[in-house]
Amino acid sequence: MSIESRVRDSFNKQKFMAYLGAELTHVAHGEVEIRCAFRPELTQQNGYIHAGVMTSLVDVACGYAALSTMPEDTDVLSVEFKTNFMRAAKTEGIIAKAKVVKTGRTLVICEGSVWDVTGKIELTRMLATMICMRSSK
Amino acid sequence: MSIESRVRDSFNKQKFMAYLGAELTHVAHGEVEIRCAFRPELTQQNGYIHAGVMTSLVDVACGYAALSTMPEDTDVLSVEFKTNFMRAAKTEGIIAKAKVVKTGRTLVICEGSVWDVTGKIELTRMLATMICMRSSK
Amino acid sequence: MSIESRVRDSFNKQKFMAYLGAELTHVAHGEVEIRCAFRPELTQQNGYIHAGVMTSLVDVACGYAALSTMPEDTDVLSVEFKTNFMRAAKTEGIIAKAKVVKTGRTLVICEGSVWDVTGKIELTRMLATMICMRSSK
Amino acid sequence: MSIESRVRDSFNKQKFMAYLGAELTHVAHGEVEIRCAFRPELTQQNGYIHAGVMTSLVDVACGYAALSTMPEDTDVLSVEFKTNFMRAAKTEGIIAKAKVVKTGRTLVICEGSVWDVTGKIELTRMLATMICMRSSK
Repeated sequence: MSIESRVRDSFNKQKFMAYLGAELTHVAHGEVEIRCAFRPELTQQNGYIHAGVMTSLVDVACGYAALSTMPEDTDVLSVEFKTNFMRAAKTEGIIAKAKVVKTGRTLVICEGSVWDVTGKIELTRMLATMICMRSSK
Repeated sequence: MSIESRVRDSFNKQKFMAYLGAELTHVAHGEVEIRCAFRPELTQQNGYIHAGVMTSLVDVACGYAALSTMPEDTDVLSVEFKTNFMRAAKTEGIIAKAKVVKTGRTLVICEGSVWDVTGKIELTRMLATMICMRSSK
Repeated sequence: MSIESRVRDSFNKQKFMAYLGAELTHVAHGEVEIRCAFRPELTQQNGYIHAGVMTSLVDVACGYAALSTMPEDTDVLSVEFKTNFMRAAKTEGIIAKAKVVKTGRTLVICEGSVWDVTGKIELTRMLATMICMRSSK
Repeated sequence: MSIESRVRDSFNKQKFMAYLGAELTHVAHGEVEIRCAFRPELTQQNGYIHAGVMTSLVDVACGYAALSTMPEDTDVLSVEFKTNFMRAAKTEGIIAKAKVVKTGRTLVICEGSVWDVTGKIELTRMLATMICMRSSK
């Protein structure tokens, strides 16, 4: 199965991604991009896209960037991540981009960012650790 | 205004919290608890509650724990947080609990956890930095 | 070999701990304490104990708290940690305390704090991920 | 005073940096580099440069990268940082490089890395939050 099919299959099983209205817009070896349009349901108390939405998207992007470097019969889980919020998400939509910074047999380290709809203003940065889970079947 | 009214007013403005089905279940000085029932829309690829949902809830709990220690005419924003995921959320619902570990004039440090529906199994732990924003009006 | 002997043997091989003047003062299953006296060589630009010294001590304490829960023929490495600095270390010495919050076969999650010399004022808090390395011999 | 003089004056007051044998090798607006040679006193249990040494250097590099963007009458403190360790520091010396990723009036977010002596192998990555302190005089 191609990397893209494998990531897309897993992404499509994440009902929370559909609930947010998130779309997988780019997959390559060690790189993933996810986009999500502004909707009132995704907002915090000031009417901007919620930090939790930004974090969810960039966590998933980091996870799939990691998965794209792992063997075929494996799954990925988030061990931990750290997120800095730089600016309020005053934007029509967000773009989460992640890339692998260190591959490994067990652990993969990824960096991700959330950008505004123009892709030019960085809103959030994440540094994450992902773990490769051998399928139990 | 009481601490609880102030936190509840702000929580009720967060449309994303309603969209997740989250409920504010406890507010005290430096302490907040939020609960959320399992729903299929909140799941990741294996059918468990999504890491992004757990993170969103405990971030909001940390933010309001911080706000409950801040002066009346202020708002709170997340500077950053770090989350460790300990166990998959195989549970009927989650309970996010947060408390302030260091107050300050500008920055407040909080610790939070997400527990399973029994409140006995810790799923996620967060260490977060919140900032006090003076209202601009 | 007892948990304490095992941790102490490894601690004694860390020349950097001796260079800082750090002492291993408590070891139990899932718990470690390290102390270090103030010395001018350990200070930052304002004359207080350096954030790097506090971090080094609490990282080592977290690592050995994790190791104390791992099988005998293993070693421990830091995957990552996050540290919040709460107060300047205006103190005659520091006490780093760590405990395991989640054991695991591969990863162990620990929480640590650095306290002032009285053990009553928390200066720094850490949330860390440690990995169990099978010895290669 | 030039940015470089200002950073160098503060760096020279950090006795811990001298104790580690660290040298400030580059300062520009929003960018700092610090180098440190291998010495047996800086090692962990396997004879490699200690995670605490790498963290200390890259924290200081992040702090001064932040300071280089702050007004003249201010000082910088670390609010928090998160560090991922990618590879053991099997090297003759390390190079810590940091740059500002988001400036701000109060908080500055920085990213740093520790490289091996060739500058080609990344050993450690940090994402840090720094705070600008107005001088009290």
